[in-house]
Amino acid sequence: MTSRTRIAILGASGYTGVDLVRLALGHPRLEIAALTADRKAGQPLAASFAHLAPYNLPDLVTIDAVDWTGVDVVFACLPHAATAQAVADIAAREGLQRLRIVDLSADFRLRDQAIYERWYGLAHPAPALLPSAVYGLTEHARPALANARLIACPGCYPTAALLALLPVLAAGLIEAEPITINALSGVSGAGRSLKEQNLFCEVAEAMHPYAIGAHRHMPEIEQELAGAAGRPLLISFTPHLVPINRGELLTIAVHLAGNASVDEVRGALEHRYLNEPFVHVLAPGVAPATRHVRGSNHCVVNVFPDRIPGRALIVSAIDNLVKGSSGQAIQNLNAMMGWPETSGLMAPALFP
Amino acid sequence: MTSRTRIAILGASGYTGVDLVRLALGHPRLEIAALTADRKAGQPLAASFAHLAPYNLPDLVTIDAVDWTGVDVVFACLPHAATAQAVADIAAREGLQRLRIVDLSADFRLRDQAIYERWYGLAHPAPALLPSAVYGLTEHARPALANARLIACPGCYPTAALLALLPVLAAGLIEAEPITINALSGVSGAGRSLKEQNLFCEVAEAMHPYAIGAHRHMPEIEQELAGAAGRPLLISFTPHLVPINRGELLTIAVHLAGNASVDEVRGALEHRYLNEPFVHVLAPGVAPATRHVRGSNHCVVNVFPDRIPGRALIVSAIDNLVKGSSGQAIQNLNAMMGWPETSGLMAPALFP
Amino acid sequence: MTSRTRIAILGASGYTGVDLVRLALGHPRLEIAALTADRKAGQPLAASFAHLAPYNLPDLVTIDAVDWTGVDVVFACLPHAATAQAVADIAAREGLQRLRIVDLSADFRLRDQAIYERWYGLAHPAPALLPSAVYGLTEHARPALANARLIACPGCYPTAALLALLPVLAAGLIEAEPITINALSGVSGAGRSLKEQNLFCEVAEAMHPYAIGAHRHMPEIEQELAGAAGRPLLISFTPHLVPINRGELLTIAVHLAGNASVDEVRGALEHRYLNEPFVHVLAPGVAPATRHVRGSNHCVVNVFPDRIPGRALIVSAIDNLVKGSSGQAIQNLNAMMGWPETSGLMAPALFP
Amino acid sequence: MTSRTRIAILGASGYTGVDLVRLALGHPRLEIAALTADRKAGQPLAASFAHLAPYNLPDLVTIDAVDWTGVDVVFACLPHAATAQAVADIAAREGLQRLRIVDLSADFRLRDQAIYERWYGLAHPAPALLPSAVYGLTEHARPALANARLIACPGCYPTAALLALLPVLAAGLIEAEPITINALSGVSGAGRSLKEQNLFCEVAEAMHPYAIGAHRHMPEIEQELAGAAGRPLLISFTPHLVPINRGELLTIAVHLAGNASVDEVRGALEHRYLNEPFVHVLAPGVAPATRHVRGSNHCVVNVFPDRIPGRALIVSAIDNLVKGSSGQAIQNLNAMMGWPETSGLMAPALFP
Repeated sequence: MTSRTRIAILGASGYTGVDLVRLALGHPRLEIAALTADRKAGQPLAASFAHLAPYNLPDLVTIDAVDWTGVDVVFACLPHAATAQAVADIAAREGLQRLRIVDLSADFRLRDQAIYERWYGLAHPAPALLPSAVYGLTEHARPALANARLIACPGCYPTAALLALLPVLAAGLIEAEPITINALSGVSGAGRSLKEQNLFCEVAEAMHPYAIGAHRHMPEIEQELAGAAGRPLLISFTPHLVPINRGELLTIAVHLAGNASVDEVRGALEHRYLNEPFVHVLAPGVAPATRHVRGSNHCVVNVFPDRIPGRALIVSAIDNLVKGSSGQAIQNLNAMMGWPETSGLMAPALFP
Repeated sequence: MTSRTRIAILGASGYTGVDLVRLALGHPRLEIAALTADRKAGQPLAASFAHLAPYNLPDLVTIDAVDWTGVDVVFACLPHAATAQAVADIAAREGLQRLRIVDLSADFRLRDQAIYERWYGLAHPAPALLPSAVYGLTEHARPALANARLIACPGCYPTAALLALLPVLAAGLIEAEPITINALSGVSGAGRSLKEQNLFCEVAEAMHPYAIGAHRHMPEIEQELAGAAGRPLLISFTPHLVPINRGELLTIAVHLAGNASVDEVRGALEHRYLNEPFVHVLAPGVAPATRHVRGSNHCVVNVFPDRIPGRALIVSAIDNLVKGSSGQAIQNLNAMMGWPETSGLMAPALFP
Repeated sequence: MTSRTRIAILGASGYTGVDLVRLALGHPRLEIAALTADRKAGQPLAASFAHLAPYNLPDLVTIDAVDWTGVDVVFACLPHAATAQAVADIAAREGLQRLRIVDLSADFRLRDQAIYERWYGLAHPAPALLPSAVYGLTEHARPALANARLIACPGCYPTAALLALLPVLAAGLIEAEPITINALSGVSGAGRSLKEQNLFCEVAEAMHPYAIGAHRHMPEIEQELAGAAGRPLLISFTPHLVPINRGELLTIAVHLAGNASVDEVRGALEHRYLNEPFVHVLAPGVAPATRHVRGSNHCVVNVFPDRIPGRALIVSAIDNLVKGSSGQAIQNLNAMMGWPETSGLMAPALFP
Repeated sequence: MTSRTRIAILGASGYTGVDLVRLALGHPRLEIAALTADRKAGQPLAASFAHLAPYNLPDLVTIDAVDWTGVDVVFACLPHAATAQAVADIAAREGLQRLRIVDLSADFRLRDQAIYERWYGLAHPAPALLPSAVYGLTEHARPALANARLIACPGCYPTAALLALLPVLAAGLIEAEPITINALSGVSGAGRSLKEQNLFCEVAEAMHPYAIGAHRHMPEIEQELAGAAGRPLLISFTPHLVPINRGELLTIAVHLAGNASVDEVRGALEHRYLNEPFVHVLAPGVAPATRHVRGSNHCVVNVFPDRIPGRALIVSAIDNLVKGSSGQAIQNLNAMMGWPETSGLMAPALFP
């Protein structure tokens, strides 16, 4: 076997980082060279995540302690702003020729620096890198990914929304406005931080909407939809918290354009994703469900007639930690490296 | 104490029936005189629901075995069609003067017999009774309830939808179309019947939409909204199954009418429900959650600005088995009998 | 109606405190006069627990701000040590004649100060009060409760264990050693404090034992069992965390004494609890389940033959927040005041 | 690549069968040649399990329709008795030279036909095959597995129990009696059959013991423990149902033999499993949890001092569908074929 590509995972002690470890362990071309977590430096990752005890992994270190000469690709799973700063530091010292960066944070998703600064409430730490970042919705970014050095992986909600909407919006089958997205998410999307609202007893046997009209994934979805529509637009987006670990489900009400039919919308998705290994248009009438994708990199989509004439409902489901985060990051790496895009990602969903 | 009003519960061995038993046991003016369940006749209810073993309850009997002279009020929790038939039989033999009927099925909710027959796929078993049935959304039906003999309790989704929409639609603050309702429900709404899709392993750690564009609560919501709007209308309604026992949450996207503002919509709900014991408009910005209402007869509501100008999001939450079913049935009985409407219903939500 | 007894709840912003509020709101003789929570003083309780918004409750205050002249009974739901200190302060200033105290903490459960100090790792803040405290396992403490001024409510696990074991141990039907208790608990027993291990994603779809061989409820169970056995003893006790909100289930392996049979053990429990409103020996062969008691003050018990001859399995289930905590506290108050012991406590379990 | 080994899965439409499909899809040496499900013959497996839609799988057929010449290994996931009959038929027609059988049912686990017939209530359909069946607790059966033609995979509870107990019992570190096993299981162990007790609303937010003193895994555990102890024995075993999909956790109270210490027991397990890829003795004091093994073939074990002197608590956790069923079946196949035993099985647990 040829030598493996060596990866560093920055911010390895969160749910996203640890799912990346899980996937990297099963990838035939990757070797985990470094794992960072500043506050837990010096500990084995298994001290935080005992389920990884059976695996031979490097101990957690601070970012400053990483030997970059032993790293080929950096996965950044740090909080926003911290990521951009770390990426800027690495780029400044190591360059982005040999070293490539796959960013899972929000820092390089928004091309417009002003929009970033308005929604995240701080100055962008590395605006000079924004133009070179490739927005990594894999199925729609392959040409750019092949030459990328810095990939901005989409947010989890944008992934599920854009896979469902981009082809039909670009084909002119639906109106650009209004698009009303209702989203349900498991709790892992909130990360492992200690917040009262994430305690078991607050979440179990319960559900509620959150960040109504204010979720930071909205401008990201709008940016990409605008590209497909050829004009700016605003979306309606309401996420809800549901008592499951993993899974995200979007039900999207759209207006059909002109004389377009529901069948045409569905047909456009089928056509677009016919040969895609990870996006699946279900048989007519079958509702996408998060149990179809749990733990996997798959996305399932379908289209239904709305009761209101001239409208349709598009439903899509993903695992927020896999296709919505770490899985797509690996998929992007595969695309960037010219490897088979399914490498390390073909495990079926875990059901039950 | 004066003598208690004697109730019979038809179809007592389902989740709705048994929640009615729970509430009736805590009601100061009720006595449970008869419980029916044809297939389990002869057994104690506690054989099916062991949590009721500590209570002194009549054994289950067939409907035919009920001594109607010992009954003042009938709660019908049978499946649709079976209910209408049973109610017709009772009305024919006993009359609806002394004996009053609170129906929790769908049989007397739709005033238009043709619409019933189209959505339920059968001839209505008791069309002659339709005109006398009062649609029992309590807060909006009090004058009629006072003289009612046959009350049709609203469906669970319609209850949550109509409490949120009727006042603002009637006030002309929102457009009659389009109204896009996204609904989440716990599993108890599906009842105790043996279906693969209700098995624990199919539902837990999962979620999906169902009955897309085809749910039988749609014509019911439309009927009542049309009354408030003064014209026919169609709604968009998509329910989702979520892994909790109890709870229903609706997120409703509406178009503001004319120059109406979100604050006016919220104000109209606040004004309408100011003195209502069971409907609560939360403080601005606070998201309704099902944990606020679990096991209780309360409904919590709030209004939020949508990101798309000229639109608003109205969110409401109920316990589908209580305010959405058995609790509202008791509330309707209270209203019909002239008792304090809160009798037996003021228990707070069970949280955690 | 005669005037209501006015209660203060110290530490009202935890799960135990708030369940006490729930029960007090439904109690015909109680009025909530004061609610304390030092860090949240000045806020309404509904700011922390929105499900209580529909109820008219006093705002949270610091303990120092309580007007004790307006209080008849104090419920203490503070952490251990803080409770004893607060109780000592109250006793010193107000005396325990007019003012009575129902303590839900661990501070007055262990009669032996040395054992308390060993297990809790600190000097007892109020040892002088220990002799006057009544251990309030209601069904087994009525004579003392009638004259109590300071009641120490049992821990949740001890409640479930002692109700199952005391009658059969006192009757000499089982050996004092070994008694092997395997316990399962919902997450609410861990309270609302921010700990990583109580986050939804850590607990859901998972289970594990905790505090193995080191749980603080062990010396408490031993103290009471020793009283029944007439000699000191040690127990085996292993609690497990299970992903539910409420509920506690104990499976206890015991050795039959002499020629005692399983039927005699079961019969002794049946006889002892025949007229008890809250302790129920199920029909032979029916397994106790937490769904039988969710949200209620009931305890269900049963006895089964072990496969190993000469042994039996005793199973008991309670709601840890009700019979295991706030419900039993109310029951103890009822007993102390000479009220019907079921006052405010007869609501059936919430199922489903 | 050399040609793949072709497998048939009998009874592919249950949870066990479908998890075997999941694992086989990720196995580098296997090809799924046939999937049977008599009642669903003619349908794609994805009609029953939509999460498998992205994979290219043969349609379901009846057993009679299988072309055995295209099959190298049979995995039998049928109900007991049906399995033995099918295996006998296959053995009669095809012989067990080229065709090998890995049985996941209970039919060939008990060596004593009389015990089988007593516990399963019917005549054994294929007693002649019993002597040749190898009891496939992989880590303890390798020499026999290498020459096996018919492997009886252990039950899920026996797997977790025996891995924890066999080494210490064989080493004489614990007494053969009494061994008190308290077990918790997720709901997938009950399969996909339509039973009221497996409905979501019956199981969620609840827990209870079942099959107390009567579970069919007891004689199986006893058989294997007797082998290690060198004498017959009876165990105490109480399983509980817990609201999770996957996972099994055993807490086992044992009596130390002679002067054996807890450290020696732990040391014996560490020594025995030092080089095992799937059995892991956790660091001292760390409690095994099912989240450590979810979806994986791992087993985690640890030993703790009991509060009662001379006793210890051994805790073990597995995923009942993987190490407790389909994963161990693959592991056994790997051992039988002389392949690396970890082939297709090294995926980490899915957490969160």
